Amino acid sequence: MAIVDSWTSARAARQVLALARKLLSERGQANSLGLAQDLIGRMGALAAPAWPAVFDKLAADFNPEPDAVLRAAQAYADAPGTETLRALTELSEPPRQELFRRLNRAPGGTGTLVRMRRRLLEGLKAHPDWRMVDADLLHLLSSWFNPGFLEMRQVDWNSPAQLLEQIIHHEAVHAIDGWDDLRRRLLPDRRLFAFFHPQLPNEPLIFVEVALLADMPDAIAPLIAKRSEPLPASSYKTAVFYSISNCEPGLRGVSLGNFLIKRVAEHLKRELPRIRQFCTLSPLPGFAAWLQGLSSLDDLPGLKPAQRERAAQALERLRHHSAAALAGPAALEDEALQADLRQLAAVYLIGQTPLPGGDPVARFHLDNGARLERLNPGGDRSAKGLKQSHGMMVNYLYDLDRIEEHHEAFTQGEIATARAVSGLL
Amino acid sequence: MAIVDSWTSARAARQVLALARKLLSERGQANSLGLAQDLIGRMGALAAPAWPAVFDKLAADFNPEPDAVLRAAQAYADAPGTETLRALTELSEPPRQELFRRLNRAPGGTGTLVRMRRRLLEGLKAHPDWRMVDADLLHLLSSWFNPGFLEMRQVDWNSPAQLLEQIIHHEAVHAIDGWDDLRRRLLPDRRLFAFFHPQLPNEPLIFVEVALLADMPDAIAPLIAKRSEPLPASSYKTAVFYSISNCEPGLRGVSLGNFLIKRVAEHLKRELPRIRQFCTLSPLPGFAAWLQGLSSLDDLPGLKPAQRERAAQALERLRHHSAAALAGPAALEDEALQADLRQLAAVYLIGQTPLPGGDPVARFHLDNGARLERLNPGGDRSAKGLKQSHGMMVNYLYDLDRIEEHHEAFTQGEIATARAVSGLL
Amino acid sequence: MAIVDSWTSARAARQVLALARKLLSERGQANSLGLAQDLIGRMGALAAPAWPAVFDKLAADFNPEPDAVLRAAQAYADAPGTETLRALTELSEPPRQELFRRLNRAPGGTGTLVRMRRRLLEGLKAHPDWRMVDADLLHLLSSWFNPGFLEMRQVDWNSPAQLLEQIIHHEAVHAIDGWDDLRRRLLPDRRLFAFFHPQLPNEPLIFVEVALLADMPDAIAPLIAKRSEPLPASSYKTAVFYSISNCEPGLRGVSLGNFLIKRVAEHLKRELPRIRQFCTLSPLPGFAAWLQGLSSLDDLPGLKPAQRERAAQALERLRHHSAAALAGPAALEDEALQADLRQLAAVYLIGQTPLPGGDPVARFHLDNGARLERLNPGGDRSAKGLKQSHGMMVNYLYDLDRIEEHHEAFTQGEIATARAVSGLL
Amino acid sequence: MAIVDSWTSARAARQVLALARKLLSERGQANSLGLAQDLIGRMGALAAPAWPAVFDKLAADFNPEPDAVLRAAQAYADAPGTETLRALTELSEPPRQELFRRLNRAPGGTGTLVRMRRRLLEGLKAHPDWRMVDADLLHLLSSWFNPGFLEMRQVDWNSPAQLLEQIIHHEAVHAIDGWDDLRRRLLPDRRLFAFFHPQLPNEPLIFVEVALLADMPDAIAPLIAKRSEPLPASSYKTAVFYSISNCEPGLRGVSLGNFLIKRVAEHLKRELPRIRQFCTLSPLPGFAAWLQGLSSLDDLPGLKPAQRERAAQALERLRHHSAAALAGPAALEDEALQADLRQLAAVYLIGQTPLPGGDPVARFHLDNGARLERLNPGGDRSAKGLKQSHGMMVNYLYDLDRIEEHHEAFTQGEIATARAVSGLL
Repeated sequence: MAIVDSWTSARAARQVLALARKLLSERGQANSLGLAQDLIGRMGALAAPAWPAVFDKLAADFNPEPDAVLRAAQAYADAPGTETLRALTELSEPPRQELFRRLNRAPGGTGTLVRMRRRLLEGLKAHPDWRMVDADLLHLLSSWFNPGFLEMRQVDWNSPAQLLEQIIHHEAVHAIDGWDDLRRRLLPDRRLFAFFHPQLPNEPLIFVEVALLADMPDAIAPLIAKRSEPLPASSYKTAVFYSISNCEPGLRGVSLGNFLIKRVAEHLKRELPRIRQFCTLSPLPGFAAWLQGLSSLDDLPGLKPAQRERAAQALERLRHHSAAALAGPAALEDEALQADLRQLAAVYLIGQTPLPGGDPVARFHLDNGARLERLNPGGDRSAKGLKQSHGMMVNYLYDLDRIEEHHEAFTQGEIATARAVSGLL
Repeated sequence: MAIVDSWTSARAARQVLALARKLLSERGQANSLGLAQDLIGRMGALAAPAWPAVFDKLAADFNPEPDAVLRAAQAYADAPGTETLRALTELSEPPRQELFRRLNRAPGGTGTLVRMRRRLLEGLKAHPDWRMVDADLLHLLSSWFNPGFLEMRQVDWNSPAQLLEQIIHHEAVHAIDGWDDLRRRLLPDRRLFAFFHPQLPNEPLIFVEVALLADMPDAIAPLIAKRSEPLPASSYKTAVFYSISNCEPGLRGVSLGNFLIKRVAEHLKRELPRIRQFCTLSPLPGFAAWLQGLSSLDDLPGLKPAQRERAAQALERLRHHSAAALAGPAALEDEALQADLRQLAAVYLIGQTPLPGGDPVARFHLDNGARLERLNPGGDRSAKGLKQSHGMMVNYLYDLDRIEEHHEAFTQGEIATARAVSGLL
Repeated sequence: MAIVDSWTSARAARQVLALARKLLSERGQANSLGLAQDLIGRMGALAAPAWPAVFDKLAADFNPEPDAVLRAAQAYADAPGTETLRALTELSEPPRQELFRRLNRAPGGTGTLVRMRRRLLEGLKAHPDWRMVDADLLHLLSSWFNPGFLEMRQVDWNSPAQLLEQIIHHEAVHAIDGWDDLRRRLLPDRRLFAFFHPQLPNEPLIFVEVALLADMPDAIAPLIAKRSEPLPASSYKTAVFYSISNCEPGLRGVSLGNFLIKRVAEHLKRELPRIRQFCTLSPLPGFAAWLQGLSSLDDLPGLKPAQRERAAQALERLRHHSAAALAGPAALEDEALQADLRQLAAVYLIGQTPLPGGDPVARFHLDNGARLERLNPGGDRSAKGLKQSHGMMVNYLYDLDRIEEHHEAFTQGEIATARAVSGLL
Repeated sequence: MAIVDSWTSARAARQVLALARKLLSERGQANSLGLAQDLIGRMGALAAPAWPAVFDKLAADFNPEPDAVLRAAQAYADAPGTETLRALTELSEPPRQELFRRLNRAPGGTGTLVRMRRRLLEGLKAHPDWRMVDADLLHLLSSWFNPGFLEMRQVDWNSPAQLLEQIIHHEAVHAIDGWDDLRRRLLPDRRLFAFFHPQLPNEPLIFVEVALLADMPDAIAPLIAKRSEPLPASSYKTAVFYSISNCEPGLRGVSLGNFLIKRVAEHLKRELPRIRQFCTLSPLPGFAAWLQGLSSLDDLPGLKPAQRERAAQALERLRHHSAAALAGPAALEDEALQADLRQLAAVYLIGQTPLPGGDPVARFHLDNGARLERLNPGGDRSAKGLKQSHGMMVNYLYDLDRIEEHHEAFTQGEIATARAVSGLL
């Protein structure tokens, strides 16, 4: 049985590759479309066990010819010019790229390539050479899913049920507990915006959830409470990005969140001129693990001696609590302990080298040009929040007039930090 | 005055280039969007005299580093692998491409690049080195305007007036003489389909006009008559593509017409299952000039001796008529003369090497997989028709089941030809 | 406190009535709109206790003047003609109608009147004189909600969530148990169609649910099973209307269901030419109560002696079972008992005078021109089904070519009945 | 031949009437729809000569029964109550109304009735008894085309060509000279709004053209100049209704213009908060004819002696000019003459009894609550303008806060008049 399956898989993979080679060798475009449609059909029907063979071949066989490239590079170096350059760029581009472009021309091609990359990424660790294939896919998808081509749509209770169902499914930060919970998140003081691509009109690519509040929030629970009373529009002063979720793993590495946040901020500024500030209420997912693994503060060269001294004292005090105790609800009631946690969270965010250590959420917002605004101990009292970050949450502030400046500074290794945080050190 | 202008132009061009370099050097994506928007604004405001300096620099300065490429090619040749390949592809791609991709990310970027290429093409002959810039633009635009991203829409009398106005303006084959003429071409027995890109939703890229008839037509006049009575739907048996027009010179070389014709054919087949055949009624624009310049038939090696003999006799007979006479309406009444013209049109289409000589319309349809079906002397009695082709028109037949086969044959140097035409030789 | 409330109510009612009189007395139309908008606002804010006073006055004060009408009728009888007729129709129409028409002209007017009638109907039994108001409202709403003005829309999983939520809420026949249940009822082999009015674009007025099946069904459970596998489209042969629900009590008496069913049938016939038959699977809600109250068959003059004899035997046998036993699940397993129930159901439907007794569902479909096609004992095994109809369900067949004939017969007191049912007597 | 036609007509009319009687006698609603559809089909095919017979019968045969009405009126007078009222309203309503309501239920019914009334109105003068039919049609159409059911849409250069074509066709005040002229009237400083009914979604019912200007205009030519430069949005201070046209003669008497103007004014106020005033620039169509027929000012009792004296002097001076001279372009250059005309125009508008004499445009705006704001001699120098009104144009001002007050005053016989006009007397 397994042997039969394996035979079938191998044959299906060979057929896909043969068709791919045929599509790539097609000179004109008259047949390309038909061939691409065939290939898309076969790829859609290809079973999981058949894919590794396809990826292996895509990585091994669809590369530039080393000798030809070398000759072209030599010719270009000898006489840089239109013709030598053309030859060079043609020969040095992996033929895979042209194959993917041709697939993308046919109906359903874009979706097929995105789904193919999803599979590829799942096996990437085990097959390092597939990275060559991935580089080409990422290069092309970044071009095709560039924000100029994306459409931002507000999702609300008037949106199609099939779309809302996907939102429920993909919310990755603060899970949505069914339709009633979603409905609350779509009342007027909550907004949800998503990016769509014209080729995948019914599939949200990424979405962000926004709460319209009077003030910058210090805890997540009220924002996602299912039965809270909606705030009247006259009170909206602060727009809080409290959750951002990617829906499509096949687009990993394609920059979307950054553009979505900024486009939403501009949209809300126009619609609600009273909004004074845009900020986040974000988790600090790596904090607990970092703290756990922290033996000393010596390898944090960014701290000044006095800072290091005080942080070491805080760390010392924390050592008296077991890991379980630190991640338990009782810890939230211990004010001194919370103060120590806050101080070490500041160290975690602005004391590491390179900044901001390994925290992906912090890196995302800071690289976007946000400012590290406030630390909120006890901001997330969920089990997950306690376990990953001892309940700590962070506000990052998006000051639309200064995000370029902050981003610039961040690329120079400097974090824009409000005094409320920097003063903790 | 001219000096002042020239100074202003030069300064504006320098500013554009400086911004372009800044955009390209930006590492993260946070600032890219803002920079790209600035650059798009400046490019939109750049006066005509400033562009050549921009194009010169784009051609001269945004190229791969010859030495770096050579080293990367050597490294790749020594040890082909993920890392050496990544280095090679990065270093051998002209940095212009990344610049254009970043522009394309911002609102309005796509349109700006298309309009920039329009300008570039206008000066290409005079500035051969701009071809390097053009190659990169074409490469990227082909990827962004691939048919998978395009939307086909039917244009009819319910379409927005602003769109219909563009159709009137861009019809290149059989000019539309105002709104009443257009209206006739949108009655139920005439159809018009266009491609649109999501980034340019109000600008048709290319459109094709279709007549629904009982039989394959042999003359254009009845198809574009302003006051003709619409045919009842029950009589539709043949769909005739009688005009195809590109609207956007900045997309020259991006393959659109081929895909449009096929998508329209599929659409009509679904909507009107009674349609039995799809064909064109096409001009033969190079015929008169070719005939004029034809001194002998000796350099047409494709002809067999007997064919050459008969064609030479026909040519000889035509020599008795002046060029003016051949392009005059009286010639249309001379049956013997028309027979000679038809024979030589067959030679023009299937006797040249390489096939089909320099006729762009014939090349377009034959490469698409159409069959050369019939020659129609006197099919176009307009002044332009008489002048360019002595009134000759051609039907190319799109047999949807055989277009791949015909295309394949054409790439091998063979033209699919109906006996009605091949028999003329 | 109650006294204060009562004072407030009385004052609010007086204000509404004063405004109503002002609106009615307005001669031109310039001010009508503003007055109507004011009145709509006040009516929307009127608390429940204030309404009876409004309805009382509407019934008492907005009537034709008896003397004036009598004089006009005399004048018309003396000299029938344009002027006497005009005077008569003007004077005999209750001024309420003009009031309601003026309200209906303003934004939100239609909805306000529909909601007002909803309240009025709730109190109609206790206030018989309100029937005069109701007659005028029904007269006008029938004109404004005539099917020519309604839009039929298919509701599916792509419909707005807010609409689907209303569907879940209003399904009156076979309750929808949440979003997953609804989703199953919107898969391709289930359809849902609703009527909308342009003035109330987000409020479904009535909807019908359809199952696409191979054969006429004899039980409801498989049709509303939450996890059933969708049938492939190639198997659709029968369209079954298995549930029809009104959403708006304020439109009671306005004929909607009849038109909806026919429009849906025509729509499905066009979309799915393979559908051979349209039928219902309907409850028999009054059957159990009728049977319970049936002392003898003597007052069913429609039965012939032999029929009466056999029915009486069946009835006699049923007397041996307690009411609880008849409505219990065990009864479903007793074949003889089910046969007796089926026979008496036939008596219930076609033996009463006038036909079909008091069963509203039967009356609805038979008056629509459907044929009584089949009785299905045990078709509804739910507690409600057992209690109301001993589990009996009915198929009514909509033969589109014969519905007029059947309807005609029904108005003459004759029920179109398939032999499978008439043979039971 | 004529005899044959007449026979055919008579038969077709009889068939229509027979079907109408059948539809009306139908008790249930099951067959109504089918019958109504048949009848609509036949009415659509009915030739012009057949209609008078239909209208004659509709006027003669579909009336209330005099005796029955009289008995019902007596019964109602004896005992006013629910049942006697119901009987009265049923018996006194002409059965025509129910017939028309049933027609209106079927697809296409509304359009059929509107077109039928168009025909009816054309023959109304010659057939006074058709007024009974017209009264019923107007009664129902007023209810169905009430503004609450109408949709206001802005028409612009993005609107469907088929709609724009109708606009060109129906503009009745200042003719639109083809597509280019229309295009100018749709540039940003010109607006066009129309009412549509859901049952006739592609047919504008009435439309108004608006110019956005800095100041109240005193001449029409610049507003409708084909090549004028659009005004920048920052200059818009005044919105001028410069043309209002009904598209559907079958809706004569149904109040639409009043509501359209107010809804447009509210829409513009929201969109362009800088707009300070709304006014018209209107013709004075009856002025020249009135002046021509004016023998003395004695029958204008509204004038005070001094006013009469001065007006008589002006009239005397005008007597020195021939009618042709007064309607010629030279008259426009004679300042003294223009002053006299202005004075008499004021007399024409505010000196007649009842106000404002027979001028339909003045009556329309004044009854809407507008104020008579300014007289503009030489405002319309077109041949038609000179002939009908000696070139005089009028501004009526819509002060949204005071239109109710002005309308109220007008119904009391008083015209709201700016001092600039009243001072002329």
